Amino acid sequence: MNTTRQPVLLTRDEVIDLQKELGSSSLMGQTIVKLQAELEAYMALPVDVPGHGEAGGYEHNKHKDNYHYINLAGRLFLITEDEKYAKYAAQLLTTYADLYLQFDYHIQRNTNPPGRLFHQILNEHMWLMYASLGYSCISNWLSESERCHIVDNLFKPMLEMFTEKYDFDFDRIHNHGIWAVAAVGICGIAIGERKYLEMSVFGLNGDGETGGFLAQISQLFSPSGYYMEGPYYHRFAIRPLAVFAEVLERHMPDLNIYNYKDQVIKQTTQALLATAYPNGLFPALNDASQTMAITDMGVVVAVSMYFKRYGFDKNLLGMAEIQQQVWLHPCGLALSKAHEAEENLEPPFWPSVELNEGPNGDRGAQGFLRMQGDDKDISQLVMNYGQHGMGHGHFDTLGITFFSRGQEVLREYAFARWVNVEPKFGGRYLDENKSYARQTINHNAVTVDEMCQNSFDAKRADTVHGKPHFFLGEGTELQAMSAFADDHYPGTGMQRTVMMLKTDLLENPLLIDLYRLTSEKAHQYDYSHQYKGQIIRTNFEYQTNTELHTLGDDYGYQHLWNLARGEAKDTALVSWLQGNSYYSWLGTSAGADNEVIFTQTGANDPQFNLRHETSFMMRTTGKDMLFASVLETHGYFNEAVEASVDARGKLHNIEVIGHNEIGSVVRITGDNVCLTVMVSNQPSVTETTEHQIEINNTTYSWNGFLAVKQETK
Amino acid sequence: MNTTRQPVLLTRDEVIDLQKELGSSSLMGQTIVKLQAELEAYMALPVDVPGHGEAGGYEHNKHKDNYHYINLAGRLFLITEDEKYAKYAAQLLTTYADLYLQFDYHIQRNTNPPGRLFHQILNEHMWLMYASLGYSCISNWLSESERCHIVDNLFKPMLEMFTEKYDFDFDRIHNHGIWAVAAVGICGIAIGERKYLEMSVFGLNGDGETGGFLAQISQLFSPSGYYMEGPYYHRFAIRPLAVFAEVLERHMPDLNIYNYKDQVIKQTTQALLATAYPNGLFPALNDASQTMAITDMGVVVAVSMYFKRYGFDKNLLGMAEIQQQVWLHPCGLALSKAHEAEENLEPPFWPSVELNEGPNGDRGAQGFLRMQGDDKDISQLVMNYGQHGMGHGHFDTLGITFFSRGQEVLREYAFARWVNVEPKFGGRYLDENKSYARQTINHNAVTVDEMCQNSFDAKRADTVHGKPHFFLGEGTELQAMSAFADDHYPGTGMQRTVMMLKTDLLENPLLIDLYRLTSEKAHQYDYSHQYKGQIIRTNFEYQTNTELHTLGDDYGYQHLWNLARGEAKDTALVSWLQGNSYYSWLGTSAGADNEVIFTQTGANDPQFNLRHETSFMMRTTGKDMLFASVLETHGYFNEAVEASVDARGKLHNIEVIGHNEIGSVVRITGDNVCLTVMVSNQPSVTETTEHQIEINNTTYSWNGFLAVKQETK
Repeated sequence: MNTTRQPVLLTRDEVIDLQKELGSSSLMGQTIVKLQAELEAYMALPVDVPGHGEAGGYEHNKHKDNYHYINLAGRLFLITEDEKYAKYAAQLLTTYADLYLQFDYHIQRNTNPPGRLFHQILNEHMWLMYASLGYSCISNWLSESERCHIVDNLFKPMLEMFTEKYDFDFDRIHNHGIWAVAAVGICGIAIGERKYLEMSVFGLNGDGETGGFLAQISQLFSPSGYYMEGPYYHRFAIRPLAVFAEVLERHMPDLNIYNYKDQVIKQTTQALLATAYPNGLFPALNDASQTMAITDMGVVVAVSMYFKRYGFDKNLLGMAEIQQQVWLHPCGLALSKAHEAEENLEPPFWPSVELNEGPNGDRGAQGFLRMQGDDKDISQLVMNYGQHGMGHGHFDTLGITFFSRGQEVLREYAFARWVNVEPKFGGRYLDENKSYARQTINHNAVTVDEMCQNSFDAKRADTVHGKPHFFLGEGTELQAMSAFADDHYPGTGMQRTVMMLKTDLLENPLLIDLYRLTSEKAHQYDYSHQYKGQIIRTNFEYQTNTELHTLGDDYGYQHLWNLARGEAKDTALVSWLQGNSYYSWLGTSAGADNEVIFTQTGANDPQFNLRHETSFMMRTTGKDMLFASVLETHGYFNEAVEASVDARGKLHNIEVIGHNEIGSVVRITGDNVCLTVMVSNQPSVTETTEHQIEINNTTYSWNGFLAVKQETK
Repeated sequence: MNTTRQPVLLTRDEVIDLQKELGSSSLMGQTIVKLQAELEAYMALPVDVPGHGEAGGYEHNKHKDNYHYINLAGRLFLITEDEKYAKYAAQLLTTYADLYLQFDYHIQRNTNPPGRLFHQILNEHMWLMYASLGYSCISNWLSESERCHIVDNLFKPMLEMFTEKYDFDFDRIHNHGIWAVAAVGICGIAIGERKYLEMSVFGLNGDGETGGFLAQISQLFSPSGYYMEGPYYHRFAIRPLAVFAEVLERHMPDLNIYNYKDQVIKQTTQALLATAYPNGLFPALNDASQTMAITDMGVVVAVSMYFKRYGFDKNLLGMAEIQQQVWLHPCGLALSKAHEAEENLEPPFWPSVELNEGPNGDRGAQGFLRMQGDDKDISQLVMNYGQHGMGHGHFDTLGITFFSRGQEVLREYAFARWVNVEPKFGGRYLDENKSYARQTINHNAVTVDEMCQNSFDAKRADTVHGKPHFFLGEGTELQAMSAFADDHYPGTGMQRTVMMLKTDLLENPLLIDLYRLTSEKAHQYDYSHQYKGQIIRTNFEYQTNTELHTLGDDYGYQHLWNLARGEAKDTALVSWLQGNSYYSWLGTSAGADNEVIFTQTGANDPQFNLRHETSFMMRTTGKDMLFASVLETHGYFNEAVEASVDARGKLHNIEVIGHNEIGSVVRITGDNVCLTVMVSNQPSVTETTEHQIEINNTTYSWNGFLAVKQETK
């Protein structure tokens, strides 16, 4: 057997191991059954290799499906030894080889150069990577003439396009670049042209620094492994990264890729997984969909790879359980076996983690706190105090999201885009993505003077970042993170400290939020929360409007209908029902006037591009200001069985005792409980710094970052 | 063993049969495990027998839970023979006996008299029925003194209250009345006082006509078995009905209850089950929640009873699969065994059915059409052309709902009520139930002159009803139903004919709707559809409003924000995305002006009691008018995997060729297809009636109710 006619990712022995899973109830067994059923259903359709089409249109989808099933048919041929799969993959590849050079290049419509199949070569890279993997599984089964036809009329023209015609794009350090190098390298192995593998690893110059996989993985991630565009883009880059790493481990073992640069592949995979909510959804940081999850194909590959190459971690079993499949590969087999052997599968509960940003890890961070309640429910709190996220960035530094009882409660709107929905502007980003989705007011943060952070200037935003203050992620009863953002609004300093506190008196961990603003001039501050569900009660009177106007004219306010407002003299309580759970927010500011405004999106939306979502905000005016609030998760509602328990919650007051450059002191009271929360506002604080504040003849003192004193009444 | 100390619903042999299911993976085995876990969790809480409380409040819920677990503990004691369950039931019963006579009566707040535990005796009836069943399972285990204490201080006072103090209520023919008689009869058996059983069956007078179970079941349902308040209330009445029927089969076998009055119990159970959507949810006809389903306890009991007593029906197995449990009783065991033996479980696919209304079946009907697509997806179309539904009635005669691909597409808002949510007006019906939920405009129907049907006069509405025209429910490719409602708007005749058509050219059955109005005076007609999801495209220009006003001042219009409007000269297309599926509505009228208005609920809602839901309506003005429309189900969207297929649909035009007192002719065109739909408008039509209409020199002729001619282009 010719050594170039081997599957790129499978040895003979590994194929035999996978064959043993046929008919098993393991995740691998289920994966095979599922993928085989999908392939069979697709094979029942007529073979079609169409010409050009719109993104999201029929032709686009067909080319995508075709490469997916070439790849799948190749592997399933090896595992099942059923020749119909090989024939099918061969038929598709041969048809593409017949037609490829007859297709013209698309007309260029965006920054990405056009391909012959797709409107942008990114998709053509993906096509080549998958088609090459599939080809490698059947190449030994093909006749010499079939092989020549496919290689000469399909693969080589593609390789030349990517490395010669578009050479300027091949070495670009960018998440799309990983697809380019993975595709070219894998195709090179599949057709026995090792020079393409070398180019892919070391770049066109061969120096390993100006381009190629090594340069990509060295430069794209911060030391923490975080990818600055956020998990939605990270999970897209992780797919070729994991696949190509595994290819290199097999075909360039001396590279020792899994230990390269202090295990950067481990680091960045773990950083991605650690962002996910307990139910597997990724927080929609920056431009992102609300529904992207660890069930994404790339993350399935990454979890399997990580398990095999970096060892046992029970959280990976929990993730595999959510994914309900594994990578159809020996890496996936290892994970499947461990999953099968585990008696107590539990949802993933990754440790809290602060992921630093920037090439040197000194441009802020993204913070992820997680805490488990007595009933094992996991709450997660996310705060952005890092970088802007480039072209896809949202203007939400110090913005938070909060997740409890299986749902996002303080929510991200996510992008304004109906991805791949052709009648909605070809599935591309909509105008409302800029005018609403990226704006500060569309986040759980404070908007100053109805403006966007950095005046919606992305270039300016890319030059600044949040400043970590402290991060306490190890407690089982109290966790906290704090950060400053002093460069995002002119002349206004901001500090946000968020905590999760577990106390026997409450059902779930309590979210405590101290958002402090300082300025020499007076400003209007809008502290806003995006929520979903039905308002159940408030502790203040409000007036709903009998005609609706927008809340403002610009910076996202033009999309908000002003539904209702009320004066909340001291503590404002807003309680709502989302799904099966009640949530009660209690908030106040040190300001004289606390106004609460209820809004809904949908204004100035001439094509119904926006979803209709709701928010409420506390508005106050002043110079130095402390918004202090808590969010209590409580009760249970099930309409289907008409059950409702504890719709009111336990807390009823929150009060700002005082705040200055030393610290902030807040008191929270409720049924049988009084909490005094003291937080350091000193940037130079250490865990031993002594704090002492005298307010109204009472002295509050504590050591270190913060203290919470609980008195039971 | 004393014969009065037997379980009311179980023999010794039956207990042994149930014991064999312990540890089995059958539905019965799973039911036992699930109920046992629930009971154990409840037993871990402190025993509490509180005093009075609000509906939906802690005390109310506690009394409800207590009776549920007394009942469960009794049965599980017999099945598991674990004495801790008997002890627990005894402890609860004894505590109630200690306290019951010390509780005062509640203050009466509604038409239902108050009890000592609950604010209305309906709940006290439920309490007694369940507690008696539980008691009967442990009575032989109890000591004589315990039995006496429970009987004398708890059960007998309750029986006296129901049959003496509140004797006027006991004989009332009402769905609540079934609870009263079931409770009293079952308690009578449990304590060996057969006179109470006699009263319950034959009424206080003993005549079997003025009161008692036989009178209830004879008078509450129409000949078709339909219950006029709709499935939401029907499923509540079916619980004591099924339980008490099974009791009577065992304790009054001569009654032959299951064959009583031409098997009225079979008839009414089947009528209830036949209303359900394929996913098990009940259409929210009249005041009802959107989430009530066959998983409701009463329906679980009814499905098991029906299977055991009326024989095998594969649809019951499909329903049991949705329920994922059976009645913990020999009836449930029979169903569980059949479910286990069935190799091809499929979702229930009940035949289409027209359920007549009124004591003689001549007061209109409710129509339910079901059709299966090639992929086995079941579409369901529901039309109300029956009675008003009394105090819970909605003013929606000729209103429809439509279900496809697992979701309600043309939707019911359901009731305006947050049931059992105490801060929302004690969980009771809200003002918005009258001002919005019951109004005609809040349905998929035509509203004339911005008024409600019958001017929102429930008494008047109770005197009129829809008139069935024809019902063709047996076709696999074409089904239709048609009805008149001439008494609902002054001087205006209405006829609606709805069809489902399956054609190879479309993915799913097509909904075709011909809504005809006749009047000697000009009126404004609003043909409205309640939808959920995102507008994807229209074929006409529309203008969204930059400030929002209500669409009107009364009859529900005061709750609608006027979001946008557009002129649709000929055919209007409105396409939206709901969940994973696209829907395209194409509509026209024979009117000169077709205006389309988009609305959202939420106006004049000072306490955020309404959900924010969307609708669109075609508005036109004229005398005689035909609204002709189709609803196409098409395509697929999955944001999580970023897939979108066929977002546009295949149909692009619908045209009214003509309509008069003989018939209506409509043409529908699309990619490669032209359909001509001809419908009889003659009330006296039979299946052989000849129709001939000449329009613009073309003659359209057909025999019978309707014809659909398909030409492939």
